[in-house]
Amino acid sequence: MRTRSFADMSCSIAGALELVGDRWTLLIVRDLLFGLSRFDDLQKSTGIPPQTLADRLRRLEASKVITKHRAPAAKGYGLTEMGRDLLTVITALREWGDRWQLHGTVGPPVEMFDAHSGSPVQLAMVASETGRRVHRNQLVRKPGPGADALMRFRLRAGQPE
Amino acid sequence: MRTRSFADMSCSIAGALELVGDRWTLLIVRDLLFGLSRFDDLQKSTGIPPQTLADRLRRLEASKVITKHRAPAAKGYGLTEMGRDLLTVITALREWGDRWQLHGTVGPPVEMFDAHSGSPVQLAMVASETGRRVHRNQLVRKPGPGADALMRFRLRAGQPE
Repeated sequence: MRTRSFADMSCSIAGALELVGDRWTLLIVRDLLFGLSRFDDLQKSTGIPPQTLADRLRRLEASKVITKHRAPAAKGYGLTEMGRDLLTVITALREWGDRWQLHGTVGPPVEMFDAHSGSPVQLAMVASETGRRVHRNQLVRKPGPGADALMRFRLRAGQPE
Repeated sequence: MRTRSFADMSCSIAGALELVGDRWTLLIVRDLLFGLSRFDDLQKSTGIPPQTLADRLRRLEASKVITKHRAPAAKGYGLTEMGRDLLTVITALREWGDRWQLHGTVGPPVEMFDAHSGSPVQLAMVASETGRRVHRNQLVRKPGPGADALMRFRLRAGQPE
């Protein structure tokens, strides 16, 4: 699956991709977020060959993204808190696929609503202090405490000259 | 790179992963979002072997996520509108990597701010009618116009019994 390790890249995006940067893996996470848990249901939903599915589930368990239910009454797999936190990643992919009509159908296959107000729900970039939406042209990137030489190179290379 | 096509899955997430569900591809998109454009800069930043990088750039161009600059003065690659729209996917991966400390450093390698207010910016699930944040426990999924039998199976399998 991997050609080299992303873990030493000092980048949160590379670190995330080290764990879930595989299309099968993200399809499994999608289905666990839907609430699927049994191996057979995951296999039916994703169409992943059983051996590959077992391998990806083992990796996800080793990364602490999922847990295997040990109780005989609760067979299958569930997301950890870290795994449930991937909802924004899956939602971002879904919204992008919806906007650019990558679903190959007449319209969005699934939609998400606020249980309280019934309003459709979407991802937005929000200023954490004011709660206001921020357009992507208004974003500024700055090196954080973990920026290494390569991150500074990226930030510099991306500056208009 | 692929084991089978995701394009016929009637799922926006699978459709998105068909185009960008490859860790190298998302690292390239990350760097183009930073503003990098030249092949050599992309190679230095990602560490992708040149032949693989050229292959992924060709695929991204075929998918209309990037364009190759043809003018002699502007060498390199740039994101299309469809490509720039991947910012939420990359941001979701970055925030997940930051929260779960997958960057392998003392702190976030890069941070994003609102140019106008100076406030840190984060992704949030927002009710589109009220603009209010919605907690993930408050989300309801419903089949959309493009839901096929497998999508209905997922939605049903995920219901509490």
